[in-house]
Amino acid sequence: MKRSYVHGYNTDESGRLEDQARTLEDLLHHDTRYAAGSRVLEAGCGTGAQTVILAHRSPGAHITAVDIAADSLTAARQRLKALNSANVDFQVADCACLPFEDDRFDHVFVCFVLEHLVRPENVLQELRRVLKPGGSLTVIEGDHGSFYCYPQTRAARRVVRCLIDLQAAGGGDALIGRRLYPLLAGMRFDDVRVAPRVVYVDPSRPAWEEGFSRNTFIAMVSGVARAAIDGGLIDAATWRRGIEDLEATIGKGTFHYTFFKAVALKPT
Amino acid sequence: MKRSYVHGYNTDESGRLEDQARTLEDLLHHDTRYAAGSRVLEAGCGTGAQTVILAHRSPGAHITAVDIAADSLTAARQRLKALNSANVDFQVADCACLPFEDDRFDHVFVCFVLEHLVRPENVLQELRRVLKPGGSLTVIEGDHGSFYCYPQTRAARRVVRCLIDLQAAGGGDALIGRRLYPLLAGMRFDDVRVAPRVVYVDPSRPAWEEGFSRNTFIAMVSGVARAAIDGGLIDAATWRRGIEDLEATIGKGTFHYTFFKAVALKPT
Repeated sequence: MKRSYVHGYNTDESGRLEDQARTLEDLLHHDTRYAAGSRVLEAGCGTGAQTVILAHRSPGAHITAVDIAADSLTAARQRLKALNSANVDFQVADCACLPFEDDRFDHVFVCFVLEHLVRPENVLQELRRVLKPGGSLTVIEGDHGSFYCYPQTRAARRVVRCLIDLQAAGGGDALIGRRLYPLLAGMRFDDVRVAPRVVYVDPSRPAWEEGFSRNTFIAMVSGVARAAIDGGLIDAATWRRGIEDLEATIGKGTFHYTFFKAVALKPT
Repeated sequence: MKRSYVHGYNTDESGRLEDQARTLEDLLHHDTRYAAGSRVLEAGCGTGAQTVILAHRSPGAHITAVDIAADSLTAARQRLKALNSANVDFQVADCACLPFEDDRFDHVFVCFVLEHLVRPENVLQELRRVLKPGGSLTVIEGDHGSFYCYPQTRAARRVVRCLIDLQAAGGGDALIGRRLYPLLAGMRFDDVRVAPRVVYVDPSRPAWEEGFSRNTFIAMVSGVARAAIDGGLIDAATWRRGIEDLEATIGKGTFHYTFFKAVALKPT
């Protein structure tokens, strides 16, 4: 079931990294395909990490990808160019106030966006407005509170907690995955279906150890080192130990994380 | 794929409860079937909750079910009688010192047992001894640290923590699911494969809300109320609030728990 996926650079090493990325891509996206001719909105596309996946998996769909950051869209356009894909239009727009008429899109897709918002309800309401009756909304989010590992130390727990607390301090919610169902059901979407997408890593799955544990999760946690230490959430020594403890699971322990994927319909 | 499953009582209500039980049964056991004529050991069968499932799903296998508690075996025999199943022999035995010669069984099955043991390695070594080379060991365990919910309160977290701490105080490990891989790989089993079996519950899954959240998980936590309060782990008011908070997720929030199933082979 593996399919070729062209990122535009093809040395052996990048091929290996692509294999790893595909593992997570399959887990999250294998069941998202839009019909040829359908109009799809990707809200909050950032630098296009998900856009290339959408464009590749639904080559006949007309995808409109919006983000509020013009710089990100420049990067996204570069990414898409390498894919030689003509089915994506990029547009600068605020997801809470979209420049589209009501009922414009057959489908709306939003991935790793709601976690950053103070009021995700506002964006969801706007996405619902531009979605046509009977159209589908797909939401993918993580939940950092779903993480655990073995061995699990106090320091390892603390560094992950820093990431959650920093997100909360910024008005976001790193635990949003677990509340996708009540969030969507509470906003008059129909037929809300949420399914966990579980990452389980042990030494029998080296591609996941490198591709997810080290290069996705630990890299993401490591990215807030400065903010966590300078913000007084943790001291530098504990931080270092926590990251080392997370890394120490690779090759001998286990690593656990759950994403959530929701699909809901706008009532007809 | 639903199959009829006769527990021996058949009012409407028990039928509903059986449906719920089957949901979890399918999740944990759907891929365990033993060939006709094969010799299977169930180690630590208790009152036979899993034995009836094994006997039903592998009607041609010869199952030997052992437990150290004679009283439990009496209950297990009663359960099996209702199934009208002739393929199970019960025997009182200590899993750390089994009355069987080396290499006797084609397969060994152990479910919800290792979590209670101070030295699960000792029992695994004994199970390995009575397993024939090339034979399979199947282990199913939970991991209470995998639990989370929405809404999640401090009191809800604390009552679950009490269960984990009581298990630890008794020498067990309620977080054993996450370490099945290193445990088995470290004991010279081959081809160790561990897969998470994830329970995700939201209001679109009412059978899981009743069958798992309320009647399995919250019931299990509630069972240690006396021990937790009398043992000074928590005060009675916080305990009550924690249980109420867990119950409050039903009908509006979400509930998350992960079991782990491992299959490994004895080297030939």
